[in-house]
Amino acid sequence: MMDYPLLLRSFLLRAAKYFPKKEILSIYPDEIFRYTYGDYFKRTCQLANALESLGIKRGDRVASLALNNHRHLELYFGVPCMGAVLHTANFRLPTQHLSYILNHAEDKVLFIEEDLVFIVEAIRDQLKTVEHFVILSQSGKLPETTLSPAYSYDEWISEFPEEYDFPEDLNENDPALMCYTSATTGDPKGVVYTHRSIVLHTYAVGVTFGTLESDCALHIVPMFHANAWGLPFICVGGGTKQILPGRETLNMEKICRIIADEKVTVTCGVPTIWLMLYDYLEKGGKYDFSSLRVIASGGSACPLYLMKGLNEKYNFPIRQAYGGTETSPLATAALEKSYMTDLSPDELYSVRNSAGLLALGLDMRIVNAETGKDVRMDGEEMGEIWLKGPWIADEYYKEPERSKLSFVDGWFHTGDVGTMDEEGYVRLVDRTKDLVKSGGEWISSVDLENIIMAHPKVVEAAIIGVPDPKWQEVPFGCIVIQPGETLTAEELQEFLKDKVKASYWIPKEFAFMDALPKTSVMKFDKKGLREMYAEGKLT
Amino acid sequence: MMDYPLLLRSFLLRAAKYFPKKEILSIYPDEIFRYTYGDYFKRTCQLANALESLGIKRGDRVASLALNNHRHLELYFGVPCMGAVLHTANFRLPTQHLSYILNHAEDKVLFIEEDLVFIVEAIRDQLKTVEHFVILSQSGKLPETTLSPAYSYDEWISEFPEEYDFPEDLNENDPALMCYTSATTGDPKGVVYTHRSIVLHTYAVGVTFGTLESDCALHIVPMFHANAWGLPFICVGGGTKQILPGRETLNMEKICRIIADEKVTVTCGVPTIWLMLYDYLEKGGKYDFSSLRVIASGGSACPLYLMKGLNEKYNFPIRQAYGGTETSPLATAALEKSYMTDLSPDELYSVRNSAGLLALGLDMRIVNAETGKDVRMDGEEMGEIWLKGPWIADEYYKEPERSKLSFVDGWFHTGDVGTMDEEGYVRLVDRTKDLVKSGGEWISSVDLENIIMAHPKVVEAAIIGVPDPKWQEVPFGCIVIQPGETLTAEELQEFLKDKVKASYWIPKEFAFMDALPKTSVMKFDKKGLREMYAEGKLT
Repeated sequence: MMDYPLLLRSFLLRAAKYFPKKEILSIYPDEIFRYTYGDYFKRTCQLANALESLGIKRGDRVASLALNNHRHLELYFGVPCMGAVLHTANFRLPTQHLSYILNHAEDKVLFIEEDLVFIVEAIRDQLKTVEHFVILSQSGKLPETTLSPAYSYDEWISEFPEEYDFPEDLNENDPALMCYTSATTGDPKGVVYTHRSIVLHTYAVGVTFGTLESDCALHIVPMFHANAWGLPFICVGGGTKQILPGRETLNMEKICRIIADEKVTVTCGVPTIWLMLYDYLEKGGKYDFSSLRVIASGGSACPLYLMKGLNEKYNFPIRQAYGGTETSPLATAALEKSYMTDLSPDELYSVRNSAGLLALGLDMRIVNAETGKDVRMDGEEMGEIWLKGPWIADEYYKEPERSKLSFVDGWFHTGDVGTMDEEGYVRLVDRTKDLVKSGGEWISSVDLENIIMAHPKVVEAAIIGVPDPKWQEVPFGCIVIQPGETLTAEELQEFLKDKVKASYWIPKEFAFMDALPKTSVMKFDKKGLREMYAEGKLT
Repeated sequence: MMDYPLLLRSFLLRAAKYFPKKEILSIYPDEIFRYTYGDYFKRTCQLANALESLGIKRGDRVASLALNNHRHLELYFGVPCMGAVLHTANFRLPTQHLSYILNHAEDKVLFIEEDLVFIVEAIRDQLKTVEHFVILSQSGKLPETTLSPAYSYDEWISEFPEEYDFPEDLNENDPALMCYTSATTGDPKGVVYTHRSIVLHTYAVGVTFGTLESDCALHIVPMFHANAWGLPFICVGGGTKQILPGRETLNMEKICRIIADEKVTVTCGVPTIWLMLYDYLEKGGKYDFSSLRVIASGGSACPLYLMKGLNEKYNFPIRQAYGGTETSPLATAALEKSYMTDLSPDELYSVRNSAGLLALGLDMRIVNAETGKDVRMDGEEMGEIWLKGPWIADEYYKEPERSKLSFVDGWFHTGDVGTMDEEGYVRLVDRTKDLVKSGGEWISSVDLENIIMAHPKVVEAAIIGVPDPKWQEVPFGCIVIQPGETLTAEELQEFLKDKVKASYWIPKEFAFMDALPKTSVMKFDKKGLREMYAEGKLT
């Protein structure tokens, strides 16, 4: 068989040649920008030529600080297909982390969304390697900025030819994109995706969800978050219509209207988004969601009531999926098996709300740390999830020491604790570090949070383990209640009584808060909560 | 990213662990044998242990001369996953070709379907490398045979453990299966598939047809024919139910009943089969085919009337696909694009009856031999189809000289002549060697055959170019008419008058025959027809 490298090039050229009429949409507050894969390809060629004119060579890093829109999508293919590496930076990171990752990746060019320029201006002096600033402005004009040299993306690329001979002689193991995890401890850690890993992950996403040319994908997951979970790649490869909602991602009225108007079939996002959507719909929004076929939820556990409510009241059929920055991210997806037609609704939701079944092409172990063996397939025994496969990272970028902690003997130790049931469905119990061990027994903070969040007056709940003289550690609840409602610790304890696995699961203490602190990827910041508790700030 | 090899092992282990309850069926004249992926895995482990006991090592070749059934499917994974190479031999080959390929591949073990043992007994003395004969008998017992040493497959493997530690340290470029083309000139030529090529082809089949666990696949294509077009691999990888119809493949009543009873969703086959099916249905068979989702037709052109008739009268929705032994085989598939909803029925059939669009992951050129450039995307200009990609062969096994003719500068020259329309759909015009060049103008034998086969009294038609003193070459028609009907050359010429592109397309002479000679893969044997013509046997 031919020694033919797996490159993103073949995805891009296929879209350009066979699907030049298919559409890509960027949603702005005041307009919907539409163009075609034909236009997309021309501008991607212009971008590659423009990068070359700056002296960007194979392996050079180029960063984006950008929203989900067509310009960012041009970077997604233009940069790696000309041989450079796109570093998609998370603009929600604390500024010291942001300057850290741009320096650590040694980014030479920085592409910046117009309304994020102020962030970069503030850290300009810390940036050691960036030589050029390119502003992604909707007007196409260069805004006023202290950054220099700075160009307006549209003006800049328009000077260059609409053709580019994307190289075929890259190695499939060459880096293509990179992304930093929002580490809860220490500096962010970089993960480098190769052409090979992305191509294989894309195929796996395709066969998992049956994604086809006839789909229409809405990218709710930020494009700096594990490559928007790979959805842009399967779309370009398949010639699939895609919609990039930019700042409007959090505008639920707009999102609902787009799903209905454009007949969106596929989307994915974190539970925080689904929660906002649910709240919006509960206030009376009515939309036709019948086109939706696959909605993947990941990043953190999707509360069961939310999954049920969205599905049953609004025909919005969520399935969970599991993975992280280190896993490209698809590791497992909670699709029910075809013979599960006689399951009760509750059993079916239990399947759909699990982390799911292993994706085709990966290898997984769930290892009981005490026995060192794989857990039983009984849905009870807990262990750490280990993963192996062609789209699983084997190191953190330029971090040999920290890499050794997570990548051991060919396995990625995820730090997630889970179980596997007899059908092979994984259920996440907790992060190893978030598990609460009380009187020698494990308590899953995630399970407990889900139970509490099912209380009608509760909006958000986070459980942390706090020191206890008698039980070593006990669960502590951090609760956000619905505006205008009241709720006491006693009422919550009463509510939990017949719902938890054992009475020691019920927190003795709660803090009622206006909002829970979140990490830059919208997860509950439990490290922050533990620090607040230690400082006596949670009462 | 991890340096993790693409191996068939991960498909097999996934089916065993996550889909042990899903079914595999073998159809026999007098029974339907059913077992599960759980059973399948145990027997595949037994097979691997049994092969090891014979001293079979990595890279050794093991041949099958077998029908489509569960034992053959056990060989499909057991042999390559333990490191050896499965050579699926075509039992329809002339015996001198059969002994040639078994010797050429240096097969050490030969697995033989019970009712094909007589073929091997007849060529036993010519076989130079086979050391063991394993008979695949439905009874499980060893039949009487002159072959020695011979074992009954079921008895033999039953002695071995139901567990096997399939190696993880194979190289993804190691050979996994091999298959010989039925060369029309000279000895058959071998193509070796690697673990990598099969894994990638499988993903591509999956994303092309959206194949999922919920599908039910019927394997009509012989398993010795380019790995049954890869369908067994996507089924095992996806945990998809599969049905192997053995000798009953040609029993149309049985095939129709299975499709309806088992709710088959996916199948593929050559037009000869669809023709038999159509004839059978035309005699009054009524079946519920509503479960069918994808039916791929390939190997040779599917006549348009057949595609239309099956779809419109019987709800049997065929799409064409294109490829060959050297291409694993999927190269293109004729799925319409989602925006083609306003095409007229004729336009839509023209798309579905094309060879289709390039599969995701390949590179293709259609090259005009005279200009050396890619043909225009106008559906008119003809050129030879060249292919490149990770599941395209780069040589014929141990044939350096003949390889040079087909594999040139990194491209596989298919020998097929085609066009590409403005939407990117390929249409096959002919084999380079079957094109008729009359008075300096090209005539597509395939197009002409399709037009003739649309005549209600014609069953089969093959066009060959024959020498002509004035026009260098003219088309000659070999025709099989419906039993009991009569048809003259003049009537056919009259019929063709307003249907062909130009009057010189109309054959001056026809031979009316009882049947057309076919190759071992059921294509019209045009080389044989040309020889018959030269010998004066066609009148």
